[in-house]
Amino acid sequence: MNKLDSTTVVQIGIIVKNAEKTASAYAEVFGIPKPAIVPIADDSFANTHYHGAPSTAKGKAAFFDLGPVQMELIEPVGAPSTWEEFLRTHGEGIHHIAFRTKDMNDARKFLASKGMKTVQQGGWEGGQYAYVDCSKQLGTILELLQFDK
Amino acid sequence: MNKLDSTTVVQIGIIVKNAEKTASAYAEVFGIPKPAIVPIADDSFANTHYHGAPSTAKGKAAFFDLGPVQMELIEPVGAPSTWEEFLRTHGEGIHHIAFRTKDMNDARKFLASKGMKTVQQGGWEGGQYAYVDCSKQLGTILELLQFDK
Repeated sequence: MNKLDSTTVVQIGIIVKNAEKTASAYAEVFGIPKPAIVPIADDSFANTHYHGAPSTAKGKAAFFDLGPVQMELIEPVGAPSTWEEFLRTHGEGIHHIAFRTKDMNDARKFLASKGMKTVQQGGWEGGQYAYVDCSKQLGTILELLQFDK
Repeated sequence: MNKLDSTTVVQIGIIVKNAEKTASAYAEVFGIPKPAIVPIADDSFANTHYHGAPSTAKGKAAFFDLGPVQMELIEPVGAPSTWEEFLRTHGEGIHHIAFRTKDMNDARKFLASKGMKTVQQGGWEGGQYAYVDCSKQLGTILELLQFDK
């Protein structure tokens, strides 16, 4: 593998203090339905690891589509997580852009070979994710998404 | 007007210290051609205004497509600009998401009515742009793009 196997941004992730409040603002500005606020990293599929160690951190999220890109608002709940760390050190703002991958391990190894380390990983019913810190090289964190189907 | 007239993200803008270097990293990670580094706000179309006052600030930019979304890397050159301010206060990171608008003035007025102020505006041969600070409400700056054609 000498590159990621997708060049398509599928999601933009924004860290916010209050997902409910920010979701209302998006709905109002864009004239779109306000999505439900849903728990993330909150079930038996989560298996959240932060810098390699298990974490009980969770989040409240709102997902909605702005054209071909999904916007994810994430309100950190508890710590440690990349979500809580970002809010604490940067304040609210865009945390990641996400790409689908067919092989998480290959993609993570490839990025690690470029000095880009996985800072958090976990799963949901239907797939797994990894946040890779590419801040120094690409100016942002990348999220890798691998779907079971 | 009671909403923006587009809900489609067309661009993600990232502020970087060195556009040349970061463009090389994107090309390497995604296996895509490295785009040319081009000057922005650097010609007679620029007419850059920052917080309402003329500014001679410019930028070096790299544009490339990651699926349906254009990525814009911007290296600030000179000051004052929202690009320079972001780099100075936040460091490298995602600065804005952009949407096309049919009527810049209407869109700016609508956002202003929600407390979201235009911080920079200008043009290029083919259109005009405005950056509207929605950080508190939406967690990011929005860029409005109006094309002549």
